[in-house]
Amino acid sequence: MKNLRSLIRIGVIGGGKKLDSETWNLAYEVGKLIAQKNAILVCGGLGGVMEAASKGAKDNGGITIGIIPGNEIEEANPYIDFPIATGIGYMRNLMVILNSNVVIAINGQYGTLTEIAYSLIYGKKIIGLNTWEIEGIIKANTAEEAIKLAFENL
Amino acid sequence: MKNLRSLIRIGVIGGGKKLDSETWNLAYEVGKLIAQKNAILVCGGLGGVMEAASKGAKDNGGITIGIIPGNEIEEANPYIDFPIATGIGYMRNLMVILNSNVVIAINGQYGTLTEIAYSLIYGKKIIGLNTWEIEGIIKANTAEEAIKLAFENL
Amino acid sequence: MKNLRSLIRIGVIGGGKKLDSETWNLAYEVGKLIAQKNAILVCGGLGGVMEAASKGAKDNGGITIGIIPGNEIEEANPYIDFPIATGIGYMRNLMVILNSNVVIAINGQYGTLTEIAYSLIYGKKIIGLNTWEIEGIIKANTAEEAIKLAFENL
Amino acid sequence: MKNLRSLIRIGVIGGGKKLDSETWNLAYEVGKLIAQKNAILVCGGLGGVMEAASKGAKDNGGITIGIIPGNEIEEANPYIDFPIATGIGYMRNLMVILNSNVVIAINGQYGTLTEIAYSLIYGKKIIGLNTWEIEGIIKANTAEEAIKLAFENL
Repeated sequence: MKNLRSLIRIGVIGGGKKLDSETWNLAYEVGKLIAQKNAILVCGGLGGVMEAASKGAKDNGGITIGIIPGNEIEEANPYIDFPIATGIGYMRNLMVILNSNVVIAINGQYGTLTEIAYSLIYGKKIIGLNTWEIEGIIKANTAEEAIKLAFENL
Repeated sequence: MKNLRSLIRIGVIGGGKKLDSETWNLAYEVGKLIAQKNAILVCGGLGGVMEAASKGAKDNGGITIGIIPGNEIEEANPYIDFPIATGIGYMRNLMVILNSNVVIAINGQYGTLTEIAYSLIYGKKIIGLNTWEIEGIIKANTAEEAIKLAFENL
Repeated sequence: MKNLRSLIRIGVIGGGKKLDSETWNLAYEVGKLIAQKNAILVCGGLGGVMEAASKGAKDNGGITIGIIPGNEIEEANPYIDFPIATGIGYMRNLMVILNSNVVIAINGQYGTLTEIAYSLIYGKKIIGLNTWEIEGIIKANTAEEAIKLAFENL
Repeated sequence: MKNLRSLIRIGVIGGGKKLDSETWNLAYEVGKLIAQKNAILVCGGLGGVMEAASKGAKDNGGITIGIIPGNEIEEANPYIDFPIATGIGYMRNLMVILNSNVVIAINGQYGTLTEIAYSLIYGKKIIGLNTWEIEGIIKANTAEEAIKLAFENL
């Protein structure tokens, strides 16, 4: 297990609630492609988009980091290799961004909106898949396109 | 100085950069009206909208709390009575919201967008004056209307 | 209410649990003297030493700021004028120190120990009253002596 | 790379400054033994004890997580596989503890003292090697003994 430090980290952000099957599949596919590209998936570690993408990554041999709001690493979904407990609630949204080279937003609600805004504040490029319409987001239409754009915008 | 604890706290969020005179006047007026209503102004403590609103409050006998990103209270603008140093950078944006009963957004960039989103996550009502168009914001057209709506939505 | 910004802030740290009457009286006396010296009392906003000192300050016309661990300002004890909700749990201990010009430790357990250590990291002078024996603490034997040493070590 | 989630995490805390060779060797040996026991080393990611222990772990095939104070993962020492940027300065000391099943303290100054105190607040067992004398620390005299005690106190 060497050169872990040099691996690209791709943040995946999106809603934490139960997903419709189309969004679940999209997030899963993004996670799968991140793993196939030999990048690390960084996310907020909980359910919804975070869990679907993490499962996609783990099913394909990837590595997943989940930066969770609570004090206990058990809070993370089962597809997170490295849960990081923060104890700071939704402020941890910024940490997801700080620990990503580039970010992909999928769907999402207000929590995702904080992460989109933090990405733009910190100059991290952000690719959007069926998410908020905010100036500065680079729009993609498919998981493949999102990954391609992510690697072009590292 | 009694009953300080029972005073309403109104958060004012908005861009920290130099303002055009129209926005400056709008923020100043909001601060003035907060003070005249005997409420406490809570903000991020820095420049731009935060400073104009704080000056408006102080010129009218109000009380101002500024929750600042850095370690040193000197970072706060001169119209802040109670600077609170956090040392957590832009994560402090959530603290501005947690410490407000209701929030008024004026203009603003991506930092303001995180605060709007945090308001909506935490169920704090948010009044918008010439700011982001986000579902959930209650729009106002003048400082007077914003204050009226703020007190109606405590 | 002017020149609030220029007032000295004295941090009071110590155990949050129920106190024996001697420690309660000591904390109360420290709070009283802070108010009489026209300084602001800053503390963690909860019970025990924090509450006794805050009561001492409020009974004598002082101003109190309580930087609390949770999301809701109602968590603060009734003698706090300005509760500041942080939502970051015991990490807020550092914020108590950042917002004090000098710190007085009274009794206390491990939480107080983190605050003593943070004071010493950040170069804030710390006066100790019947508390941990840590190199760098300036020992006092009475509330009067603690206040005298605090003002000599701003 | 499977079952990463189930690996034991051992926190190593201690001074971040340049070490004398005896302390460096002790920290290196602790890191080495953590790797040989197939546990993950968690630390603050910077220099001194953190770097020596991380090097000991990496030289022996281990995995290292470094929870750093700043915004940029480049701040981490070169032996950290997974730097986690927090942006919260010394408050991150609590995160090192939250992410460890058990903690080993080696030498150290006031920062280490905050981490010892946080360990005791959160009920994480803490093994001490030539460090602060604080009630609650389980003392060890050698790296081997520290690791043995750590695994006995998970």
